[in-house]
Amino acid sequence: MRGLVYSGPGARSWTQIPDPGIQEPRDAIIRVDAVTICGTDLHILGGDVPEVAPGRVLGHEAVGTVVETGTGVAGLAAGDRVLASCISACGICRFCREGSYGQCLGGGGWILGHLVDGVQSEYARIPFADLSTYKLPDLVSDESAVLLADILPTAYEVGVLNGRVRPGDTVVVVGAGPIGLAAVVTARLYSPAHIVVVDKAESRLLAAKMFGADTAVVAGAEDPLAVVRGLTGGLGADVVMEAVGTPQTFELCASLVRPGGRVANIGVHGKAATLHLEDLWIRNVTITTGLVDTFSTPKLLDMLVAGQLDLGHMVTHRFGLDEFMPAYDVFGDPAHTGALKVVLTR
Amino acid sequence: MRGLVYSGPGARSWTQIPDPGIQEPRDAIIRVDAVTICGTDLHILGGDVPEVAPGRVLGHEAVGTVVETGTGVAGLAAGDRVLASCISACGICRFCREGSYGQCLGGGGWILGHLVDGVQSEYARIPFADLSTYKLPDLVSDESAVLLADILPTAYEVGVLNGRVRPGDTVVVVGAGPIGLAAVVTARLYSPAHIVVVDKAESRLLAAKMFGADTAVVAGAEDPLAVVRGLTGGLGADVVMEAVGTPQTFELCASLVRPGGRVANIGVHGKAATLHLEDLWIRNVTITTGLVDTFSTPKLLDMLVAGQLDLGHMVTHRFGLDEFMPAYDVFGDPAHTGALKVVLTR
Amino acid sequence: MRGLVYSGPGARSWTQIPDPGIQEPRDAIIRVDAVTICGTDLHILGGDVPEVAPGRVLGHEAVGTVVETGTGVAGLAAGDRVLASCISACGICRFCREGSYGQCLGGGGWILGHLVDGVQSEYARIPFADLSTYKLPDLVSDESAVLLADILPTAYEVGVLNGRVRPGDTVVVVGAGPIGLAAVVTARLYSPAHIVVVDKAESRLLAAKMFGADTAVVAGAEDPLAVVRGLTGGLGADVVMEAVGTPQTFELCASLVRPGGRVANIGVHGKAATLHLEDLWIRNVTITTGLVDTFSTPKLLDMLVAGQLDLGHMVTHRFGLDEFMPAYDVFGDPAHTGALKVVLTR
Amino acid sequence: MRGLVYSGPGARSWTQIPDPGIQEPRDAIIRVDAVTICGTDLHILGGDVPEVAPGRVLGHEAVGTVVETGTGVAGLAAGDRVLASCISACGICRFCREGSYGQCLGGGGWILGHLVDGVQSEYARIPFADLSTYKLPDLVSDESAVLLADILPTAYEVGVLNGRVRPGDTVVVVGAGPIGLAAVVTARLYSPAHIVVVDKAESRLLAAKMFGADTAVVAGAEDPLAVVRGLTGGLGADVVMEAVGTPQTFELCASLVRPGGRVANIGVHGKAATLHLEDLWIRNVTITTGLVDTFSTPKLLDMLVAGQLDLGHMVTHRFGLDEFMPAYDVFGDPAHTGALKVVLTR
Repeated sequence: MRGLVYSGPGARSWTQIPDPGIQEPRDAIIRVDAVTICGTDLHILGGDVPEVAPGRVLGHEAVGTVVETGTGVAGLAAGDRVLASCISACGICRFCREGSYGQCLGGGGWILGHLVDGVQSEYARIPFADLSTYKLPDLVSDESAVLLADILPTAYEVGVLNGRVRPGDTVVVVGAGPIGLAAVVTARLYSPAHIVVVDKAESRLLAAKMFGADTAVVAGAEDPLAVVRGLTGGLGADVVMEAVGTPQTFELCASLVRPGGRVANIGVHGKAATLHLEDLWIRNVTITTGLVDTFSTPKLLDMLVAGQLDLGHMVTHRFGLDEFMPAYDVFGDPAHTGALKVVLTR
Repeated sequence: MRGLVYSGPGARSWTQIPDPGIQEPRDAIIRVDAVTICGTDLHILGGDVPEVAPGRVLGHEAVGTVVETGTGVAGLAAGDRVLASCISACGICRFCREGSYGQCLGGGGWILGHLVDGVQSEYARIPFADLSTYKLPDLVSDESAVLLADILPTAYEVGVLNGRVRPGDTVVVVGAGPIGLAAVVTARLYSPAHIVVVDKAESRLLAAKMFGADTAVVAGAEDPLAVVRGLTGGLGADVVMEAVGTPQTFELCASLVRPGGRVANIGVHGKAATLHLEDLWIRNVTITTGLVDTFSTPKLLDMLVAGQLDLGHMVTHRFGLDEFMPAYDVFGDPAHTGALKVVLTR
Repeated sequence: MRGLVYSGPGARSWTQIPDPGIQEPRDAIIRVDAVTICGTDLHILGGDVPEVAPGRVLGHEAVGTVVETGTGVAGLAAGDRVLASCISACGICRFCREGSYGQCLGGGGWILGHLVDGVQSEYARIPFADLSTYKLPDLVSDESAVLLADILPTAYEVGVLNGRVRPGDTVVVVGAGPIGLAAVVTARLYSPAHIVVVDKAESRLLAAKMFGADTAVVAGAEDPLAVVRGLTGGLGADVVMEAVGTPQTFELCASLVRPGGRVANIGVHGKAATLHLEDLWIRNVTITTGLVDTFSTPKLLDMLVAGQLDLGHMVTHRFGLDEFMPAYDVFGDPAHTGALKVVLTR
Repeated sequence: MRGLVYSGPGARSWTQIPDPGIQEPRDAIIRVDAVTICGTDLHILGGDVPEVAPGRVLGHEAVGTVVETGTGVAGLAAGDRVLASCISACGICRFCREGSYGQCLGGGGWILGHLVDGVQSEYARIPFADLSTYKLPDLVSDESAVLLADILPTAYEVGVLNGRVRPGDTVVVVGAGPIGLAAVVTARLYSPAHIVVVDKAESRLLAAKMFGADTAVVAGAEDPLAVVRGLTGGLGADVVMEAVGTPQTFELCASLVRPGGRVANIGVHGKAATLHLEDLWIRNVTITTGLVDTFSTPKLLDMLVAGQLDLGHMVTHRFGLDEFMPAYDVFGDPAHTGALKVVLTR
């Protein structure tokens, strides 16, 4: 079969590789039907994630059809249509027993396209398949479902739930890429009174408004602090979500939060930031970080079926499975392509 | 009457000042029976708190007897023996309605010895007296009660409750001054399996052990990270409390916490710290800051009466009320005097 | 002035009474601009609330204009337009300090039209005025605001928050009177996937659908258990709210909840019910009761201003202030009049 | 091998039965080293649990040594010394993913000695072995460990955690059998100010005091309501735990709780009770029920190792494994034998 192989910083190819096979009793093999590319894949290609070895098949977000299951797989059978999630879980370690699958100590966590071969390929091996996949109802399209492999649960758990968004809150999302937009969509489930989105790109701010943001702030041209204070009687936002991953955006977030408010970091950070404890020590602020656990995935699927998640504008480009090379080009240059999520299907 | 007056950086005097009087309907006047000095008072004297104007009477921790009440005071009468808390509360603003008295928008918060004259004097005016004082049961001594004016609720609310200490946890307290020791005392209410205290001073570590710490780590001589990893199978502590207030100790705390753990800042910080988001983004960490709200003060008083708080070794030096000048000298030089809390009584 | 006076079971009159005056420093006097009638007022007239003495002016839900304030009132002035809430609060007792104003031990709680004269009159005395009233923004109409005096916070706090409604939940509301409809409106703030409403009256079920219910079940004609099991794969509802107040409806609620679910009692009960512990002991069910605390009133006002609460169909009948006698007749016979809430204005 | 077989109401025998074997990939076979009898086993023998078929081996609390594992078992190997818990868990269904193992929809839950053969035998088959057993540290004795198979996590999760015991609380436990005593032991982890225990048997009240209760009330001879009101200024207890399982004791519990308090049902109930909603509707009470989930078992084991759980007086009688018949006699007649828990070992 063919797969998208990382060959060291900057080097990727859609190339012939051996078919995957069952290695452990709890493995399943899926035929990949729809798959997407994550900003994290670009970080890997940029050489920022050194534990990814050359030769690795990338990708951790797919919809597929089960073709084979190991002897220890209980809930899946060949022919099942499943979501393959970014997080695998042994289900036995102390963190898995608490639903903290992202912190799995038993060989799971974020492994696909990272520590083992991923899903940007024609077939893929899914370790701990019972806890790493979710059977899909017929009503859910591949294209919607694949958005629940990573960005929806990440935005919801790490942004909205960690940030404890509540009805009537003023919420700020800094960064209007796919994760930030998913934060807008899932924050709305808690009926905040006001969602402010901050980004440099006007096209992304326009998308944010389509997903339900009330106010768009053009970073660089407008002062987010003035806007947020204007909306909140000078107090600051109840919840601020960081969805970029730079020291500057984190520091902006920390400046926007009200006393007693929450700053939820969703972004992937590569550098240390400055924490202004000389201002914050007295302000009862809560700052959270987190890798997604995907405990919310079944509930998000239910909500997708119930029509509660409007994801219609999230997929901007569609490709065939063997068009991975141009798909990466388009996804990697959103300033020119306007790409949010790209989906590749058989 | 006489009071301890701040006259600019480095300058304090125990000097004659006018008697306080009722200024607002909700004021009460108390005769000060017992009073203590806080590390924050030393910060003020160091010039670090510029909003304290010269001429200000310092102090925000006292036990006294009500001598006069304004017409709007409902629950107090002359002769009542009360704790005068570090936090005053209007009781009406949005934060007070949530019990976040420390963030009061109606003229309360930390005002005593800060924005209005404090309690290091023979008599003191207590604004919003109904919500800023607590009637004392006969069983509670002045000396124990005065410890509930600030350090006990601060350690409990901002350290133990924000840090969500749970039975069986491994808890680290960095800093074994009065606040850190109060964190040890109140953390024990939740039965952690292990309390580790880190400090430079061996005398303070000895005190920490008397208050219930299980392991003492001499900062500089031992590696706290190695100790904590040894106790936790390499994972890190469930809860880490910062009780010093420097960038270095905060960064130490952030390095000691396990995935999914909590870092609770109790210390008063004067400088920014470095937040290693490049390590923490993936670790599901919660970092909190906070000024005390004193919502727990009535419960702590109940626990004091029930014999649940062993504060016996916290007061190391005792003075008369007119010995404020030497009391400050002793409290300000703990390396030589071994002072924890000093109490001055009539 | 005139007021609606209770003269013993079954006896009410709109009659001349003395003007109210300031009795305590924290009192305010308001001119009543808009006022409504509660189902509880009908219970009082039915003789079910024996602590209401003959001669009492009824009513605990009004919008008014401050005309006079006591010396202990801090945040109000003559001319302020305010919501007079069903709950008064001393702000000092242990329950008030926790925001449990409904349980006030200092003379507050539900007192208006119950233990002191209420607001169904031309003017009214409001004890503890700072904590018992809420200033109204210009944008909010009297008619919308008066719905926040009782039914909205009651449904939200005692139903939705106690029941912990979460995104994607299946929620059942038993009883589609004003409180049940307010539960539908406020449950939607948490984006449940499905709201089922059960009532005998088809007109009320129609109203429930207008307020956002997804499924209406005609009690008596359809089997609520079969409907709920059909919607939930046989498990039962995540949250069930009781908004009638009879043993039968409570027992229905307890039968509809899934393992791990919540039953929130909003109704006012006059009789004991049967609790089937022989079924429930093993099912991890949480059952709550409660009088409203009104801690959510400021937030609900913000949401009203932000357009998040659609209350358009709640007021079915409008009267002048001196039409209290016919207004009671209409409100007391909803089967024929179709009344939900009636509002009387100057 | 031999096992304790239920042959219909009132009939039990220690008799020869076939050795258990692996039936499913996730099964393990253990050699039973220590085992105990539960009050629930007496209920089964009384005919109260009709889903237990004649021929069933009873028992759901054991310590054993793994002798064989299925191909789907990941974390266990022959020779491992394990606790076999009362709850089995598929680990895959919606409830297991939330840690609600007791409500497992995938074939787990309370099945041992109930729906499949139990552990009162020389060897036993443990379904879903990875999630139904816990490896034991060398420091933990069989006799202490076996108490963590059911009564400790049940009392802790269903009583203490559901009841939200907090430092300084007044806690009442009605029923001082093994579960009630375990509730006393685990409630103390949260440092309540006062624990009151109510029981008819003075010997059990004496035991309660040894486990840390502050006040013992002889049911029938003293009035629990008067005692609790006396301790709480007339308000009632913060938390009341029902550990008997009769309508009378439940109704007593509901009468003892303060406004805003919690009633946690731990007892196994066979009959409906009366719920006095006419009193409770206005009191903000929370009532919970629950089967244990055992999510706390690893933490309780840590606490046992750390010396935080004093279980020294819980085992009153010791037998050899082939003495099951007299062991049942002793356990079934506590009024004469004073039995709390009986343990049978090889």
